[in-house]
Amino acid sequence: MADALKIGIAGLGTVGASLVRVLQTRADMLAVACGRPIVATAVSARDRSRDRGIDVSGAQWFDDAVEMARHADIELFVELMGGSGDPAYSSVKAALSRGLHVVTANKALLAKSGVELAVLAEEKGVILNFEAAVAGGIPVIKALRESLTGNTVSRVYGIMNGTCNYILTRMEKEKLSFETCLKEAQRLGYAEADPAFDIEGNDTAHKLSILTTLAFGTQIAADDIYLEGITNISLEDIEAAADLGYRIKLLGVAQKTASGIEQRVHPTMVPQDSVIAQVDGVTNAVAIESDILGELLMVGPGAGGNATASAVLGDIADIAKSRPGAQLVPSLGRPARQLDVYKRGEIQSHEGGYFIRLTVQDKTGVFASIATRMAENQISLESIMQRPKSHNDKAERQTVILVTHATTEHSVRQAVAAIETEGYLIGKPQVIRIERPVAN
Amino acid sequence: MADALKIGIAGLGTVGASLVRVLQTRADMLAVACGRPIVATAVSARDRSRDRGIDVSGAQWFDDAVEMARHADIELFVELMGGSGDPAYSSVKAALSRGLHVVTANKALLAKSGVELAVLAEEKGVILNFEAAVAGGIPVIKALRESLTGNTVSRVYGIMNGTCNYILTRMEKEKLSFETCLKEAQRLGYAEADPAFDIEGNDTAHKLSILTTLAFGTQIAADDIYLEGITNISLEDIEAAADLGYRIKLLGVAQKTASGIEQRVHPTMVPQDSVIAQVDGVTNAVAIESDILGELLMVGPGAGGNATASAVLGDIADIAKSRPGAQLVPSLGRPARQLDVYKRGEIQSHEGGYFIRLTVQDKTGVFASIATRMAENQISLESIMQRPKSHNDKAERQTVILVTHATTEHSVRQAVAAIETEGYLIGKPQVIRIERPVAN
Repeated sequence: MADALKIGIAGLGTVGASLVRVLQTRADMLAVACGRPIVATAVSARDRSRDRGIDVSGAQWFDDAVEMARHADIELFVELMGGSGDPAYSSVKAALSRGLHVVTANKALLAKSGVELAVLAEEKGVILNFEAAVAGGIPVIKALRESLTGNTVSRVYGIMNGTCNYILTRMEKEKLSFETCLKEAQRLGYAEADPAFDIEGNDTAHKLSILTTLAFGTQIAADDIYLEGITNISLEDIEAAADLGYRIKLLGVAQKTASGIEQRVHPTMVPQDSVIAQVDGVTNAVAIESDILGELLMVGPGAGGNATASAVLGDIADIAKSRPGAQLVPSLGRPARQLDVYKRGEIQSHEGGYFIRLTVQDKTGVFASIATRMAENQISLESIMQRPKSHNDKAERQTVILVTHATTEHSVRQAVAAIETEGYLIGKPQVIRIERPVAN
Repeated sequence: MADALKIGIAGLGTVGASLVRVLQTRADMLAVACGRPIVATAVSARDRSRDRGIDVSGAQWFDDAVEMARHADIELFVELMGGSGDPAYSSVKAALSRGLHVVTANKALLAKSGVELAVLAEEKGVILNFEAAVAGGIPVIKALRESLTGNTVSRVYGIMNGTCNYILTRMEKEKLSFETCLKEAQRLGYAEADPAFDIEGNDTAHKLSILTTLAFGTQIAADDIYLEGITNISLEDIEAAADLGYRIKLLGVAQKTASGIEQRVHPTMVPQDSVIAQVDGVTNAVAIESDILGELLMVGPGAGGNATASAVLGDIADIAKSRPGAQLVPSLGRPARQLDVYKRGEIQSHEGGYFIRLTVQDKTGVFASIATRMAENQISLESIMQRPKSHNDKAERQTVILVTHATTEHSVRQAVAAIETEGYLIGKPQVIRIERPVAN
């Protein structure tokens, strides 16, 4: 059997501890599968004294991850600290510069500096793997980078934030408010004390930007994403969606259009009988539509120490199985210097169906006015309905729900703006885009 | 750029023609992704004169695939002829013996000779890839072999035959008989003129045997699978399943049990709100349950020239990216000589829930007798119900539906045998196993 692959692990939180445990308990199995043992010979974390329930006494300890990247006797640097800044950035850069392979689970780092790091890895002839950075345990990076070679991707979309999906699922199943479900998610550890990063869609955007690059061969453009979170979704929206045969999911969608690549993260209505509509709770799902393969959907755990560690381990195993002299699979699907410049598809030109919920004064002519404003903007309606009033509803207001056939964002915004000037609208209109899977 | 990878394609049916087309039209894209061009320099098929809508004039023609494997100037032999016998077997063996890499889409060949061929590939230091052999375009082989490295799999199951899933879906959605839907599937080209291989479950069994080996590290045992097809499934079963919150799918299931590895292919009731229950028509799905990752489900096209060609292309690309000196990923997940002997888990000891449909004479005491026979066999019932009679039902008979809590196959068979001796049963009892996803 060949020499052991010596790895250094920076970050011993949930994922890091899980990884150390698996490397120790499955050492024999891994050695058989990879053709050589994998041994963590160096570890780094902030607090050496903390009890993590793992034994790292056999590994060299570094207080400083950058030091470990520079000096540890390792071939592979595993970055599990998170964050787009230091020490993650500097340590990964130091490791690659030194000619070490790198495995990272850090979506923020890749969203910000992925291309730069991939260029460096290719210059140094080493591997940069990051399966765990998007949708946790779901092997979507490998699918895009390897299985779909030769395919032209037209759309990639998915449920990539467990917190949001947990909240939306609970709201629907238990008929609870957004606020109640958010608190429940926090209590269960599915949401952070400051949940903004998840519920505003930023986390999904980071992941989407990485998928976009792999799917379309463009540079990573994480700041160029249309973003809408789920804080504005009410139980009323969810119930109206159900009545119309839809569920609401926070999707990240990247799509090739005439004007460029659309990248958008927003609450989305998906048909109730589609497979992705059934993905509940903290589970993630990613769909890829491509011209040769067709539609591929992958569903699995998007977070959690073990699922993430499993993806990291798969990346490590791929490196253990490789050898000097082997051709490198480009980290981002094609050589990083050959990525196209990202050209943004403007949200204004987005085409699709829309759900529009309006609270209006209960008076004659409102229906006609709404329908007229839609027609003036060439929007054809699939349905227009008045929601049955609940006991609590004030008599003088009613809810009007519209579902449009395919139209453009621009037309919808024009129509809604026109309706807003009419004077019968109460509160803000709710507009939710509809996304239809090609199949499934 | 490195030298081109020269490949020979044996078999120019739908998949082969699609592959040739893609290699030609995407040549530049593939060269960038793989670091070198991929060129089909040799082809083989039975009839040289047939018009396949592709240009193979630049490739050397072989009437005999074995000749091509032995003598063509190629590094990689692509087998797309199908069948477990010759010329597929001899040509793949000749190619591996000569030190060529092999990509095949041939499930029958692998089910019969997969271990022998993997041993040969490993002796010769070449790659044997077969992503397209199971579930078409779904990258389940790569997931099991690479992404799940280090995981212990507990169960793998899936919808792996599009013909059966098409028939079952049509029966449910259109309330049609099995026979009508089978004819429709034949008319649309989803089913062969002789459909036995699909509808009796043999096709699923071949695929399952390959997944079992990758999941559990045991030798391929395609002849050691409990097999039940869908010919016995009536619209009445499907409707009763729907009333109870289930759908009926033909699943292949491999599961680790105390007595060995259960491999079974049979109609299965899955909960209506599970993700896999939503997989309709010719679409395939494979779920993998493992201890570190959790549950991973992949859904996609299981057949068709393009989807299959896409999987073959992914395999070819992996080989194009590899280089002499690279460590080989063992074809079957671990070195083929180190696979464990397959120990069969007996169907009699299968544990799970059951759906039992009995047509009985409409007389006093029948319900009590059925319930008693169940209790005598320690079977606890989740529900027992009488189906509403339709207009056509004869007055003197009624249908009794039982759903059991988890029990054993042995107990169910004992109880049903006891009921059969009572004299009130009309026709044969219908017994369908229930399978529950852990999540999703």
